Amino acid sequence: MRFFVIGTCAVALLLQGPQAPPPDQTPVFNAQNQLKRPSGYEEWVMVGASTGLSYNPQINAQPGAGPGMFHQVYLQPWAYRHFKQTGQFPEGAMFVLAFYESVRDAAPAKQGYYPADPIASFEVHVKHKGLSESGWGFYGFDEGQEQAGMVPATAACYSCHASEAKTDNVFTQFYPAMRALLKRNER
Amino acid sequence: MRFFVIGTCAVALLLQGPQAPPPDQTPVFNAQNQLKRPSGYEEWVMVGASTGLSYNPQINAQPGAGPGMFHQVYLQPWAYRHFKQTGQFPEGAMFVLAFYESVRDAAPAKQGYYPADPIASFEVHVKHKGLSESGWGFYGFDEGQEQAGMVPATAACYSCHASEAKTDNVFTQFYPAMRALLKRNER
Repeated sequence: MRFFVIGTCAVALLLQGPQAPPPDQTPVFNAQNQLKRPSGYEEWVMVGASTGLSYNPQINAQPGAGPGMFHQVYLQPWAYRHFKQTGQFPEGAMFVLAFYESVRDAAPAKQGYYPADPIASFEVHVKHKGLSESGWGFYGFDEGQEQAGMVPATAACYSCHASEAKTDNVFTQFYPAMRALLKRNER
Repeated sequence: MRFFVIGTCAVALLLQGPQAPPPDQTPVFNAQNQLKRPSGYEEWVMVGASTGLSYNPQINAQPGAGPGMFHQVYLQPWAYRHFKQTGQFPEGAMFVLAFYESVRDAAPAKQGYYPADPIASFEVHVKHKGLSESGWGFYGFDEGQEQAGMVPATAACYSCHASEAKTDNVFTQFYPAMRALLKRNER
């Protein structure tokens, strides 16, 4: 009996270990292959912030023009740790891209920009075998939307991520800590 | 014996629970009251990014000028959860302010900026009774510096944070998720 109890305890501890992704940090699909809206991602690892990133050439560079929108990209902590250890993204990795207008109306800052409240819509990039040729799928969520169908694999985002992203369809070239990890691995 | 084992197991689980801050996420002081360099903070909760925030009026707004440095502020996950639950920052809370030059030389972006590799120096703001009148202390770490003495409590950062920061010496006015939590609590 004592061994049984110790066994249960070991399993309980194991389930809490770094190898078991928390259920609220894994992609959930319904019978129609729609992705369930992820939540709580502002507590995930923020791998890259940027402002005004765009695939279109700049048209407006007037003096005093703002820097454009803040983008913040989040990855589940367990998937980040897997990337740190292996240099690869595990099955079930989810990147969330959140958008914020840039504002500058709060004391005591006299210049510079910070993010306004988040834009209600956000995008998700999920690694899950069979979703597309690359093994990744894109999903967009609007305000209050609980399920989203995959963006068709013919959309430009797939071909651009496949050809331009530095690591397995992920734009690690924009993410400082991931760049440093990859550089260390190359040595 | 069985109860003893179950007891040990319960304690083990409890120690892993959300109430016990991980040892590598708590401030450590040496006998000279110097703070040990925190590490791994890029995996903490990133509460606020900004670009070019400065207390000085803008002098240079030439067309094509960059947005200034990226600032990213991190808080330990356990302290973030405490704030979410209570609206207050717990003893031992540590904010890390990391700096990055802004760059724009990576395909496929045709405009916009993202962070370069982190500047070697960073700053830490620690909540710990007795450090100063406000209960907080500032510390600065240079490259490779393993211990830092507190910035004297007469420095301008203390009086500015005391008078201008929205929540207990913390600039929550710049941090989207914290702003949303505070708004929700005010209702």
